[in-house]
Amino acid sequence: MRTIDWAGDHVVAVDQTLLPGEVRMLRLCDVDAVIDAIRRLAVRGAPAIGVAGGLGVALAARTGRDAGWVRAEAARLRAARPTAVNLAWAVDKVLCHLDEGTDAVVDAAVALLEADVAANRALAARGADLVRSLVPGPTAVLTHCNAGGLACVEWGTALGVVRALHEDGLVRVVFADETRPLLQGARLTAFELGEMGIPYRLVVDGAGPSVIARGLVDVVIVGADRVVANGDVANKIGTYPLALAAARAGIPFIVAAPESTLDAATPDGAHITIEERDEDEVLSWAGRRTAPDGAAAYNPAFDVTPADLVTAVVTDERVIRPARGERVT
Amino acid sequence: MRTIDWAGDHVVAVDQTLLPGEVRMLRLCDVDAVIDAIRRLAVRGAPAIGVAGGLGVALAARTGRDAGWVRAEAARLRAARPTAVNLAWAVDKVLCHLDEGTDAVVDAAVALLEADVAANRALAARGADLVRSLVPGPTAVLTHCNAGGLACVEWGTALGVVRALHEDGLVRVVFADETRPLLQGARLTAFELGEMGIPYRLVVDGAGPSVIARGLVDVVIVGADRVVANGDVANKIGTYPLALAAARAGIPFIVAAPESTLDAATPDGAHITIEERDEDEVLSWAGRRTAPDGAAAYNPAFDVTPADLVTAVVTDERVIRPARGERVT
Repeated sequence: MRTIDWAGDHVVAVDQTLLPGEVRMLRLCDVDAVIDAIRRLAVRGAPAIGVAGGLGVALAARTGRDAGWVRAEAARLRAARPTAVNLAWAVDKVLCHLDEGTDAVVDAAVALLEADVAANRALAARGADLVRSLVPGPTAVLTHCNAGGLACVEWGTALGVVRALHEDGLVRVVFADETRPLLQGARLTAFELGEMGIPYRLVVDGAGPSVIARGLVDVVIVGADRVVANGDVANKIGTYPLALAAARAGIPFIVAAPESTLDAATPDGAHITIEERDEDEVLSWAGRRTAPDGAAAYNPAFDVTPADLVTAVVTDERVIRPARGERVT
Repeated sequence: MRTIDWAGDHVVAVDQTLLPGEVRMLRLCDVDAVIDAIRRLAVRGAPAIGVAGGLGVALAARTGRDAGWVRAEAARLRAARPTAVNLAWAVDKVLCHLDEGTDAVVDAAVALLEADVAANRALAARGADLVRSLVPGPTAVLTHCNAGGLACVEWGTALGVVRALHEDGLVRVVFADETRPLLQGARLTAFELGEMGIPYRLVVDGAGPSVIARGLVDVVIVGADRVVANGDVANKIGTYPLALAAARAGIPFIVAAPESTLDAATPDGAHITIEERDEDEVLSWAGRRTAPDGAAAYNPAFDVTPADLVTAVVTDERVIRPARGERVT
């Protein structure tokens, strides 16, 4: 099953807010529906929201309305969430074909979708090779949030690497951070690891660094929402402490992301817009309030891991070593 | 209101599992009730469980049964939770008076309770002086878990320092980690900060380190469950990443704890027993499961922050500087 797909005249996507309790497919027929799905994280994960943005442009083009209107819709799609660069990248890439007609736009969007699958496979193979070169024998991996098939079209980035290692019998255990506030680790990564038959243990986000310090982890592998020119990495809030702990423990910290997540035009992490989401995500869970009435929260959705803590960024085309000073070009 | 108190022939204590929704007092009439309250974290916080242990010995002594039985009950109390050294310390301190008769045991337990209040006040004043010497002007503090009045008899350790600073108008804002899995930050620290009228923002545990990295925090102040000879600090899971981030950002990482939390007999953090609690604390919240059926969790309740990351340990009697190589004696 694909996380998101093109159904000839509309988009279908798994509603990730309902997992793991319920697998329900959403039918997204216009740009508003796509934007809503992205904003409320029914469709999430940098590669998946890129694909959704591209398909959203296809939906806009298929209305037959004028180019100015389609471009305005594309601008709205591009702005649905600010941090993952894949969204703007995909929207622009599909929009580029607008003058060639509706079919060309749809073809470009579908091509992006298929390219995401191919990119995942390529980066997973390269990432697994890298891990094998760094860690001898069966490996204990720690990951954060969900960078699995659910974050992409299928297969996954960070979890794609884990899957590739697992196919060679090289995964001993995966520690998966639950990833508050929206629990993508507990809900989605646990679901995918269970489906793959990979042994795993969920941990609270505060536990990851000490699990690393205690020698229980061989390698940290995460996805990314944006990797900028100097090698700084924006990813789900809670990634940075894992990189700090990995550096202190002397284990590799690997970022697995397709080329579309690289943003050579932004010089460093200080220039990345970090989305701040609604306080209620922190103050309640499953409709039940976790904090006193009147409590206030600060809810940045991403953090920035400085390049010097990033052992490697593995893409579908290459391995970049930010900690050695290698830049994203 | 005191978190825990002696009522002449029984112990009264706030049931902290129900806060902030409900303030209900527990009546603990025997050792079993005290142990149960400690194990299910109805009474929690290293100083408070120390006091509870001491009062538990008083309850045992008041039964009039023989000394052997009372000592066996004391041993059960001592083993109720393994990581906070205050529990064994208080039990032994009260038990020491057993040969002097029941009244002497009760007096010793009540004296410990009163001493906790005095110790909190003294360490809060010393801690506030230290922060004033390190950070000019109104201060942004980050704290983890709950080291407030609810973790003690009243007043608090880390939050006691914050309270003392606040009385001098020197607290700009407190960032409070929610502290999964049991949300002592969201439930208890937010409650206490609200009562004190101190501006605060709750953050998910994964956010603390990047909030520090972004320059939003001047000082990290936490409590402790055990500080050992070399200055390593055991505290609630999720403390270690804050110390890593504070060190990288060049801001002070301060541990506020009474002398009873110091354990000079244990050489270093590797020798501290870290309690592992039930997986269900991680796998569900408020009776609602957060992970797929069949998911497994790893739930260490504490982590160890290495001495080199600890700027200062402030007690009711002194300031120890582990990062400068000062030892706990």
